[in-house]
Formats: sequence, C-alpha cells, structure tokens
Amino acid sequence: MTIPPDATLADVGEFGLIAQLTALFSQGEHVLVGPGDDAAVLRVRTGHVVVSTDLLVEGRHFRRDWASAEDVGHRAAAQNLSDINAMGGTAHSLTIGLGAPGDLPVQWALDFARGFAEECALVSASVVGGDLTGAREVVIAVTAIGSCAQAPVLRSGAEPGQVLAIAGRQGWSAGGLAVLGRGFRSPRVLVEAYRRPEPPYGAGPAAAAAGATAMIDVSDGLVADAGHLAQDSGVSIDLRSAAFEVPEPLHAVAAATGSDPLQLILGGGEDHSLLATFDRGSVPDGWTEIGTVGDGEGVTVDEAAYDGPAGWAHF
Amino acid sequence: MTIPPDATLADVGEFGLIAQLTALFSQGEHVLVGPGDDAAVLRVRTGHVVVSTDLLVEGRHFRRDWASAEDVGHRAAAQNLSDINAMGGTAHSLTIGLGAPGDLPVQWALDFARGFAEECALVSASVVGGDLTGAREVVIAVTAIGSCAQAPVLRSGAEPGQVLAIAGRQGWSAGGLAVLGRGFRSPRVLVEAYRRPEPPYGAGPAAAAAGATAMIDVSDGLVADAGHLAQDSGVSIDLRSAAFEVPEPLHAVAAATGSDPLQLILGGGEDHSLLATFDRGSVPDGWTEIGTVGDGEGVTVDEAAYDGPAGWAHF
Repeated sequence: MTIPPDATLADVGEFGLIAQLTALFSQGEHVLVGPGDDAAVLRVRTGHVVVSTDLLVEGRHFRRDWASAEDVGHRAAAQNLSDINAMGGTAHSLTIGLGAPGDLPVQWALDFARGFAEECALVSASVVGGDLTGAREVVIAVTAIGSCAQAPVLRSGAEPGQVLAIAGRQGWSAGGLAVLGRGFRSPRVLVEAYRRPEPPYGAGPAAAAAGATAMIDVSDGLVADAGHLAQDSGVSIDLRSAAFEVPEPLHAVAAATGSDPLQLILGGGEDHSLLATFDRGSVPDGWTEIGTVGDGEGVTVDEAAYDGPAGWAHF
Repeated sequence: MTIPPDATLADVGEFGLIAQLTALFSQGEHVLVGPGDDAAVLRVRTGHVVVSTDLLVEGRHFRRDWASAEDVGHRAAAQNLSDINAMGGTAHSLTIGLGAPGDLPVQWALDFARGFAEECALVSASVVGGDLTGAREVVIAVTAIGSCAQAPVLRSGAEPGQVLAIAGRQGWSAGGLAVLGRGFRSPRVLVEAYRRPEPPYGAGPAAAAAGATAMIDVSDGLVADAGHLAQDSGVSIDLRSAAFEVPEPLHAVAAATGSDPLQLILGGGEDHSLLATFDRGSVPDGWTEIGTVGDGEGVTVDEAAYDGPAGWAHF
C-alpha cells in the first residue's frame, strides 16, 4: 500500500498504519514472534529480566514544533533504554503504545517509528510489539525489557566513604530547552542535545562490572536524582562543583540569558547521564568523580545547601 | 501521609501519589526489585517470555461516568492478561503508565490501582513498575509479561479440516454497552460484564496443553477476530450460528432495542473470550465448538457472507 504524503491516521486507519509501522522494525534473533500476534514471544536465558516503562505526552515531554518526529522517536526510546542502562543492563526488547488524534499525519508516525528504531539499534534492541489508538493529544507509552550480565545495580547500595561519579553529558538538554524556550535555535549543538539525548549506553554495564554500589539515570535533574539515590541508600551526597567541566556551549547560553551555567548542569535532566557510586579507586574509564558519599541525608553542593531548580513537577 | 478525600493529583504531586499507589501492589516471589528503582528486576527461568501492550484512552475505551475507577482498573488489567492467555501463557508481571489531568481526584487513581491489582491477583501477577505524568485526558498504558509452560500458540497455525472453538462469555460486554448507550443501567448483569469483563483465564494454557493449533482473544469482535485468525493462517472459517447459546439477558436487550441478539454475539468484542482451533475430537473441557476451518479465505456465518457490524475503528 502506498500512502499519499499528506494522509492522516484517519485516512489510512489503524490496520493500514500498523502494517507500515511494523515493517520498520527489524527483529533480533531472540524474538520468536514479533508484532502482529496477541503478544510477542522472546527467548530468554535464566537470569534477571529488567523492565521499565515511561509515558511521554505531547506538550509536556515534547513539542511537535520544537522537535521532528524522528527526534521524538529517538528520545522516547532513549529514555527507556537509559533506565535499563541505569540498572547495569542492556535492553533487548521494547513495546510502543501510540495514542494520536485522527488528523496526525501518517508521515509523523512513520518518522517517529524510524527514529525510535534507529535509537534501539544503537543497543541492538528490537521493537517487538505495540498498540495504536485514537487520543486527543499524542501520547507515547514505551516499555523496555532487558537483561543484566551480572547482578543489577539498585539505587539503594551507596555507603558513606564511597565516591559519586557521572557518565555522559549533563546540562546540555537543559541548555537546549532554555534556548528553544526563548525562541532561538542556537547553539545548535545544545538544541540537538535536547532533541536527541545521547545516553552513555555501555556505561551502565561497565559500572556494574566495575562494582558500582548504586546507580540512577538523571532524568529529573542531577541534584534531584542524586537526592533519590541518597534517600534510597540512606546516605548524604556532597557534589563538588569544581569537578564539572562546563562545556563551551553552556557558557554561551548562560552569557546570553544572564544565568549560571552550573545551574544548567545541577538542575538539568533529560540528558540521561548516569550517576553511580563506587569504592574509592574503583571508578572505571568513562566515568568522572563529582562527589562523595557521607553519613546523614540530602544533597549538598560544595558542602552547602543547593537552592537552584531541583527538578520537574508533573502536575 | 493521609490524603484528604477530595484531593487532586495536583494537590499531592507525583511522588506523593506514587508512594500511595505502590503500597497497593504486592510483589510475587519472582520480583527481585519492584516499583521505585530505574527498572524492575524479575527472576525468570529459561524459556519463552510473552509480552503484550495496550493503551486505553478515556472517552474511547472507557467513560468515567459509565464505569467506576475500580472497574476501569479491572478492565485495563484484564485486556492485557487476556493477550497473554491467548498465547497459551500466564502473565506474571505488569507495568502501568498513567497519564491524567491535574484535577483528577487522587481517590480515582487509588481505586483504579486497587481494581487493577485485584484483577492481576486472579492470575497471581504482580504490578512491578509504572510511570505517572500529566495529560489532558486519562490515558492508561499497560504492558503484561508472562510465560508459557509449552510452545506459545500463534494466530497462524489453523489448518483446513480443524474446528474452531470458543471459551468464555461472548456478546455480554456489547450488550452492556448497548444498554448504557441508551441511558439504561439494566440488565445489570450485562452492564457489569461491560464494566468488568471476565476473561476465561486458564482456558488459554488449557488449550495449548490440548494441542490448539491457533488462538486469538476476541477484542475487536468475534467475526473480526476470527477474520484475523483466518488471515494469518491462510484459511477460511465458517461459524455455525446454531452453536451459540444465546443467554437470556441478550434476548432481553435485543427485544428492548429491536435488534438480533446474534449480532451482539458475532459483532461484540471486549468480553475477552478466546477463539482457538483444534483437530477434530481434541477440543478440551471449557471450550465450545462453533465452527470449522476450510480452504480459501474470510469468515462466513452458516456458509453465507456476514454483513453485520464487524468490529471497531480506532480513527
């Protein structure tokens, strides 16, 4: 079936679009049954299965005028792949639920799916199933399933005396969002970082192999997520601001907006960097030490209370 | 934390509600890490993992004035558990994504979660993770993960000469919807069937054990879903109308609305009954023979074309 370029979901209907979408998803060897039956069937080895789910809502998690459909696809996949990364695992299978108004261009859905599949390919994961339905706004529900080569790393294992380290970019997405929010499109590298985060896939399993004692992905904000880790571990965390190298584009945004680039780093989420704790001397390659774990509770920056924006409120 | 009875999601915020919700979900022994970390961790044995996902949208899949929050919870779980049932498997783990407007009463979310958990308990499945976010309308994304004691039963294995059988109620939910759509609340048993389907859990694994060659759950409509099974198997299916016992409440609805009760049975979806094909003489207890598999394609009723409502259009 050939779809005219200006067709909408209402024009082609559910089943017409599903056939087009599933053609975009190649299946790995572990997938015995992919999309199209009542359920997908995967072959797994005995061990830990790691599962995470996320909901993205238009206007809250993405804007169609700020990011292409392909970008949204990349981002929707990335944030779920990152959750598996943060357990020290690698995703092998994902499902997508897409709710959308009937007037959504078919091309948007196809481009979204293409971006999603491209991001999944970075870790060799397959899109094994999905659901498609009408909705007033575009809603994307993703579930990622993965496995761990060793015991999963929880948020709760940090202990006083250990160090906190980070892998991946931090503050770039927040910088991009700040730029877009003011009606600008540059620095382009930050806008791109907002549109398509680049989670440090591989850093999670590497941390697990190096003996990480706790791990979390930064999605609410660095300080907020360090706070989640501290709370679940029953420890305090002190971040050392001098440990962060402020990349040039963040300096540029801060200068243009009269703000402090460190705030973008400390408050920013959605780069899907990883935070993990290690015994001193055990921080692996690709990770940067940025703080220490102590007794007590809460997160401080240079041993002082942090009063910047801490994260994201959903309601 | 005690939540006042009239509190909204906006009043208590994401993290306050998540704590209340997760307290409602008891975890099975296979759940090593439940809700609260970046991902849930399950222990599984080597074998087939079966995965299905569905999106429910307010106003399309449910109405808050037609069904209680607990009913919606039951239904959201049931339709995903049913997909696993239709593979011959049993679900062990589910995730929920809930998108909702800030003015949604907290009590609605809690009652929804309670109904969801109750339905999952019918098959001893655990709610292992979720996501909560703002949205303009209530959107519920569910993913179910299960396992099969033997090879999963696909839609594609039916062969000419075999028989088609059904397990579970059929037409009851459609009858209830017809009643509600006309502003009535009785026959109560049908309205209840619409609000809380009762999928024949156990019939799927029983069919697989008895050698079912193809299986599907009825969610779009009996004729529509028989059509999916016929298409995927490359066969035709003839339904025998005399094989259906028309339950008394469907007679009552048909009489009141001047319609044919058989149409409710043939066109109805959402009871989550199962259709499966078997070799002659192999239909297990709890299943009723309703048709035959032949060469060719498409679905006929008493060897004639079916021109009733065939199913559900999403856009």
